[in-house]
Amino acid sequence: MTSKFDKKSLQLHKKNNGKIGTLVKVPLKTRNDLSVAYTPGVAAVSTFVAEDSRRAYTHTMKGTTIAVVSDGTAVLGLGNIGPYGALPVMEGKCALLAAFTGINAVPLCIDVHTPDAIVDFVSAVAPTFGAIILEDIAAPQCFEIEERLQKLSIPVIHDDQHAIAIAILAALINSLRLAKKNHKDVRVVIIGAGASGIATARLLHAFGFLDIILVDSKGIVHKKRTDLNPIKTKMLKITNPQNITGQHADALVRADIVIGLSEPDSITADMIVSMAKNPIVFALANPNPEIDPAVAKKSGAYIVATGRSDYANQINNAIVFPGLIKSALDLALTSFVQEHFIAAAVAIAKTVSRPSPENIIPSLFDKKLIPNIIRAVKKVSKKT
Amino acid sequence: MTSKFDKKSLQLHKKNNGKIGTLVKVPLKTRNDLSVAYTPGVAAVSTFVAEDSRRAYTHTMKGTTIAVVSDGTAVLGLGNIGPYGALPVMEGKCALLAAFTGINAVPLCIDVHTPDAIVDFVSAVAPTFGAIILEDIAAPQCFEIEERLQKLSIPVIHDDQHAIAIAILAALINSLRLAKKNHKDVRVVIIGAGASGIATARLLHAFGFLDIILVDSKGIVHKKRTDLNPIKTKMLKITNPQNITGQHADALVRADIVIGLSEPDSITADMIVSMAKNPIVFALANPNPEIDPAVAKKSGAYIVATGRSDYANQINNAIVFPGLIKSALDLALTSFVQEHFIAAAVAIAKTVSRPSPENIIPSLFDKKLIPNIIRAVKKVSKKT
Repeated sequence: MTSKFDKKSLQLHKKNNGKIGTLVKVPLKTRNDLSVAYTPGVAAVSTFVAEDSRRAYTHTMKGTTIAVVSDGTAVLGLGNIGPYGALPVMEGKCALLAAFTGINAVPLCIDVHTPDAIVDFVSAVAPTFGAIILEDIAAPQCFEIEERLQKLSIPVIHDDQHAIAIAILAALINSLRLAKKNHKDVRVVIIGAGASGIATARLLHAFGFLDIILVDSKGIVHKKRTDLNPIKTKMLKITNPQNITGQHADALVRADIVIGLSEPDSITADMIVSMAKNPIVFALANPNPEIDPAVAKKSGAYIVATGRSDYANQINNAIVFPGLIKSALDLALTSFVQEHFIAAAVAIAKTVSRPSPENIIPSLFDKKLIPNIIRAVKKVSKKT
Repeated sequence: MTSKFDKKSLQLHKKNNGKIGTLVKVPLKTRNDLSVAYTPGVAAVSTFVAEDSRRAYTHTMKGTTIAVVSDGTAVLGLGNIGPYGALPVMEGKCALLAAFTGINAVPLCIDVHTPDAIVDFVSAVAPTFGAIILEDIAAPQCFEIEERLQKLSIPVIHDDQHAIAIAILAALINSLRLAKKNHKDVRVVIIGAGASGIATARLLHAFGFLDIILVDSKGIVHKKRTDLNPIKTKMLKITNPQNITGQHADALVRADIVIGLSEPDSITADMIVSMAKNPIVFALANPNPEIDPAVAKKSGAYIVATGRSDYANQINNAIVFPGLIKSALDLALTSFVQEHFIAAAVAIAKTVSRPSPENIIPSLFDKKLIPNIIRAVKKVSKKT
């Protein structure tokens, strides 16, 4: 996994000793400054906040600060490289959040890897932060961890599940509009049943998709399989209504949409040819997609998206989390629900003013993107 | 516990949503910036660091960043006010560190309180930081917690123990010089056997003081006591060599030095009168000292110090930790030893160019203070 940016990236990180630091927001130049910001004045603030912990949102960093927590078990396409290797990525995520939304973000790369230990860690540190993003934690532990952490008084969201699922739904909304198809009538095949595949299936189901086929490394997830883990078994309730069987090539025959969240080069030209009219192909394996976009197009794909910035239609979870997290802090949300995610996806889709097959998803640099997400999430929160 | 700074402090905290935030140190304005700082370029940095975790010191925030961890069980003079109440204080400590040394600091206020849970938490998050300051954790758990965390690959220091002990030793070095007494010949009475009292006794012993009397709420800590906890029992090996008994008033008779780390107004004028010639009185209870400095002076005290900024000779741990922590990061230290602490105390004492009874300890604003501490700690580290 190399890129033309590698050398520059290594230089940048060394020169700056990483990417983020501490910004001091109050004056500390005189003895008087210290007495106000620190002792003895701070005792009044501590007492005030201790009396009612909700005051931490207005009088401490909690209301503007989140943590990005990773155990380094599933980092980018690099796999289980541990907490030290994960740190540059988590710093990057925090830098992005801070630069694009003005909120504060702290990476916490941890050297514990069981669900119990990760749940304990996040629960312990929750008072300090307004929200927690779980990042690059391997499946299937990530599901249990996120689920158990929903009991906390702040939102906890596993980025690799929900942010990518939201970005995919947003891109699908525009794609279906262009292809003149209704989400209730199409077959969607999701190749890859890890964190992002499962979360995408769940979100598409919540949105109203009716025919979702999940495929893992052994083939289509169906009722006769005896090798399914509990999560995949649970997914049978909302996927594969006709209980079809076979490999992913079989699933793609007459399918309208394929979403690749798997391995490079796992989709062939023949498979695209076998799909329904105007097929929609999201080949999101990083950094090398399941099929070369040019090959997919030549084989009849109507719309092609990848995870890469050097092709049209980059589907990247970076477009989702800044707006989503900023809205959680602004609202002092205690948890996210699927309605928030759907509202965010619809808002992202609408941000593209004139969708075309080469333009189904907005850029992170689109000035309307983050405000649109925030407005949509706030609207939902008022209703619920 | 109120002060004239309370109202201003509440306003300052609300206006700024706390005191610290995230500083982004790299450009993130263009798609190219993102490719260098984040994906795909960051994968090269992650791989590089994962191969050798020491590289985290140069290529990530680890080498310039510490965490301040508190469970909120012993905050200032406020007691057990919990993690939310602790947050303004920890933010203040982080802001001070950042403002005075340029290092980065993150407060982590946690809602777990047993030694096991706190040790687990700090151990888990250690990969992210170059050092950990434990802060405002109640005695006696704080001793066990700090001791067990010495096995980590980064320094872990309980501020309430060591920073105050170092500041006291520094002030004593100058005081004894002025009083023309040798540390081997004097009797020191320490009133208060909590975190700071125990640590001070240990550091004074390591420095070479021979006659140290520790006093807790039940009186002098001596061999016939049956109510001592394990730490206090252990302290008998290095304190009270003549095994004197009685209350703190008894301990003070003919003592040269009294260090109050206890309750307001627990030292009377009569007790000062009973002390040896030129008595040295450190009345450090916060915010109200064990004896009014004017009363102590009138009763014959040669030197009086308090924890307050509005009297001469403020002994505050804030003067210690910026230099100490900065040197740990600069040296990528794996742990602190008593030699580092003694070197820091000597350096602090020497920073006062012309000591007088009203000027035994430097101010945090003294430009020479932090460089002097760093130089001294580096010198020791080269030797060991």
